[in-house]
Amino acid sequence: MTGKNQIGNELKASGTIKFRTFNPQKNTETEQLFTEATDAEINEALTLAKDCFPEFRAMSGQRKAAFLDAIADEILTLGDELIQVFMSESGLPEGRAIGERGRTIFQLRTFSELLREGSWVEARIDTSIPDRTPVPKVDLRKMNIALGPIVVFGASNFPFAYSTAGGDTASALAAGCPVIVKSHPMHAGTSELVGSAVNKAAQKTNMPNGVFSNLNSRGIEVGSKLVEHPSVKGVGFTGSIRGGRALMDLAAKRAEPIPVFAEMGSINPVVLMPNYLRENVSSTAKLYAGSITLGTGQFCTNPGLILGVKSPELNQFTKELGIEITAFDPSCMLHPDIARNFERGKTKLFEQKGLKVVNHSIKSAPANFAQQAIATVNGATFLLNSEMHEEVFGPFSLVVQCENLEELTNIVEQLEGQLTGTILTETDEIAQHPELIRAMQDRVGRLIFNSVPTGVEVCPSMLHGGPYPASSDSRFTAVGTDSIKRWVRPVSYQDWPNELLPDELKNENPLGILRLLNSANSREAIT
Amino acid sequence: MTGKNQIGNELKASGTIKFRTFNPQKNTETEQLFTEATDAEINEALTLAKDCFPEFRAMSGQRKAAFLDAIADEILTLGDELIQVFMSESGLPEGRAIGERGRTIFQLRTFSELLREGSWVEARIDTSIPDRTPVPKVDLRKMNIALGPIVVFGASNFPFAYSTAGGDTASALAAGCPVIVKSHPMHAGTSELVGSAVNKAAQKTNMPNGVFSNLNSRGIEVGSKLVEHPSVKGVGFTGSIRGGRALMDLAAKRAEPIPVFAEMGSINPVVLMPNYLRENVSSTAKLYAGSITLGTGQFCTNPGLILGVKSPELNQFTKELGIEITAFDPSCMLHPDIARNFERGKTKLFEQKGLKVVNHSIKSAPANFAQQAIATVNGATFLLNSEMHEEVFGPFSLVVQCENLEELTNIVEQLEGQLTGTILTETDEIAQHPELIRAMQDRVGRLIFNSVPTGVEVCPSMLHGGPYPASSDSRFTAVGTDSIKRWVRPVSYQDWPNELLPDELKNENPLGILRLLNSANSREAIT
Repeated sequence: MTGKNQIGNELKASGTIKFRTFNPQKNTETEQLFTEATDAEINEALTLAKDCFPEFRAMSGQRKAAFLDAIADEILTLGDELIQVFMSESGLPEGRAIGERGRTIFQLRTFSELLREGSWVEARIDTSIPDRTPVPKVDLRKMNIALGPIVVFGASNFPFAYSTAGGDTASALAAGCPVIVKSHPMHAGTSELVGSAVNKAAQKTNMPNGVFSNLNSRGIEVGSKLVEHPSVKGVGFTGSIRGGRALMDLAAKRAEPIPVFAEMGSINPVVLMPNYLRENVSSTAKLYAGSITLGTGQFCTNPGLILGVKSPELNQFTKELGIEITAFDPSCMLHPDIARNFERGKTKLFEQKGLKVVNHSIKSAPANFAQQAIATVNGATFLLNSEMHEEVFGPFSLVVQCENLEELTNIVEQLEGQLTGTILTETDEIAQHPELIRAMQDRVGRLIFNSVPTGVEVCPSMLHGGPYPASSDSRFTAVGTDSIKRWVRPVSYQDWPNELLPDELKNENPLGILRLLNSANSREAIT
Repeated sequence: MTGKNQIGNELKASGTIKFRTFNPQKNTETEQLFTEATDAEINEALTLAKDCFPEFRAMSGQRKAAFLDAIADEILTLGDELIQVFMSESGLPEGRAIGERGRTIFQLRTFSELLREGSWVEARIDTSIPDRTPVPKVDLRKMNIALGPIVVFGASNFPFAYSTAGGDTASALAAGCPVIVKSHPMHAGTSELVGSAVNKAAQKTNMPNGVFSNLNSRGIEVGSKLVEHPSVKGVGFTGSIRGGRALMDLAAKRAEPIPVFAEMGSINPVVLMPNYLRENVSSTAKLYAGSITLGTGQFCTNPGLILGVKSPELNQFTKELGIEITAFDPSCMLHPDIARNFERGKTKLFEQKGLKVVNHSIKSAPANFAQQAIATVNGATFLLNSEMHEEVFGPFSLVVQCENLEELTNIVEQLEGQLTGTILTETDEIAQHPELIRAMQDRVGRLIFNSVPTGVEVCPSMLHGGPYPASSDSRFTAVGTDSIKRWVRPVSYQDWPNELLPDELKNENPLGILRLLNSANSREAIT
């Protein structure tokens, strides 16, 4: 590790602002000193990215796939050093580090497969009709091409999978967009190592210099300058609503506004239907205690709000959930700031009138460790107090006891946009309440049946996002192959000569991709 | 005609702000008095739209298709009255009115076909793998659903095709979004008639009340209030950069930011390659004189900038273009304001140092008629003077004489985003200049070979939009079936019972649509 910025293939550290990352388990700073990127270094990274863009964008799917596969290989080659740095900068255990590395590798390989297959460009071809009246029809062909250089913000809660070579970077590189990572200040070392793997892979697969840069930052200035830079054409972010909205506002104010995909806060409502709960009190309490404490509650899909109808079973569930959750030993949070915010969030909530703390872990624990908690409140109080709707990031959940399903549905209708919504129910039971399904569906990106929201599959059918403020734009996803659509725009070619068309649109369909040819799906050549 | 606002099925005019539209051919106001929508009427329209949204969104493709077809039928039923009002409010001739009505009907029927086929929802299904290790894989299914109520701004230059029942409205209704049209102040009568056709069709096909409203406005206030209204989930606009950007800014500042698709200004650069021009001087001059004057130059794809390399042929072309264009009789513009802006824009441009007027029509003409013009300037002067890059909306084009292809390419690289870019060339000739194709492609939504940019086909392969400021978001199109993507968001269903899934995602695939099933395209059922 060097603590320097990776400006394409070069390491630079001409700045004067230095910082260290923090080991929350040991409650001390780590050893390596990092240097924040200067304005000149930011400009240099962007100039390289802009200059290499035409070459990178035009590169074949095969070559980009080889690059992504090489990144995966180089990350594995980093071996235990990477795992140790991840653990020291995040306080997360080894199993999680290895698991998240696996997910990151899988994401990269998923995109390389997508590129090798090739149909993701959504080719549409309408051939000419020279004898159409009153005017002849032209030949028109369309496909997706890359937007341009993309800035990716490393996330605090997923130092691998949503960071340097995570989903945003993998999808942007797959699209043909150069990527400039602003590493998370808490994970500068993890990011430098992963960044070095990306750059090694770029050199091994003969990518143009500038296709990837990794910049250090202590505060928000580097990120702001990147979003405002005229060479940047899009932004990927995972984090808080405040942070994401700030980037959205910056991007909207530019002379040329650019799209920001921000995946932000969510309390991920869970509905417990009465008949279901009657039969499943203890198993549900156990299941949810596990989901709420997963990764010390630091998942964006953490279930922070549980809605049920007043009943002896709901009382029993709430009590058991409190016992189950505090049975876990407190675990380490990512950073002292996050641990402090968790304590503050709980305290603020616990002071709200009408809220009752069911159980709060009081085991003695080291600094930065989270004390789990469960609280409860009645539906009417919750509806009137919007403070209770806010995310408390950490192992906490609020059980809302509603008078009836009508009140419960009304609460769902008042919620802001959410990443997920879960209903635990018997099929017959929920079938009687289409209005509740509808209300939930209108507010979420993913609707879950009889399970937990934590756990986000990487596959074509995943929607990880949702109505604001779950994400900045509900029309896109942060996870799965469709996440590439954030970084591409369609371009049409009218009457263009066959030999000058991109391969994807040529008559002979040399890549054998699926195309919409005169409104029918086909892999056929045009004769 | 009543001059009232259509709030769902009811006509209301409780406001005190009254206005008339203007007949530019007669240079007088038209007879009908219109009443601007009040705040209460705006709220009422939005409440109806919000309340009917769940029902309308969940409606089958067959039913929505019947609605769109009925709109087309009802527009035709309006017969000559509609054509006459269109002509009186726009100054456009009868042939154009009938042609544009035909295009509008075609767009509506294109979307009804899309709905009947059904695959547009982009269904993706990944079935479960219960024995996957380390954790079982869930069943996940995703499809596009409607965003919510959409506000559509009628365009001044296409009173049918980009207005009340135009492309924005047709695509939003097809998606399952209720539509609130803010009619263009200049075309309030045309909009009322078309709006009455939409509402008649809605009632005939048993659509819920509120699926469509048409509101009058004299100025910008009604539009601003609509964009800021919390029940609105998206905006469609065609018009000026200033107008579009104002709406983007309003939408970005909302508590819940919403997507705005604005199709805005463009000067639609045309490159004349030397070898091509040598053989085609007169035919190209004739072709472009026709394109520049089409619809009195009031097309968003009007070619306002022609780039060539200094040569005797380019001189000859410029001279002939000037002669050809002023050979046309001046024709009527849409409105006195637009005619005034055209004169102002020309005057401002003609005052720029280094610019030479080639030819300017000086035929006597009635008020509101546009005097066509062609001007020329050398490349270096053009590059340094950004005033010359601005759109002059009307029958005008600027011929830029470059020293060489390098300077020409450099100019293309400095241009803002454009709807279209055209290259007139021999195939061998342009094949030697990939950097020029690349530069053009990076700035445009549609790349045209040896033709004119005017004329926008309605088909799946059309991209009508482009990098800012040609549009607000280059990832979407205003024209063609893909324009529906502006108004939908994907939602994922995890482990959802088959009987509660939407038909599009059910195992048996009752609609027979194309789905991405475990990463392969298929119309098969899941057994």
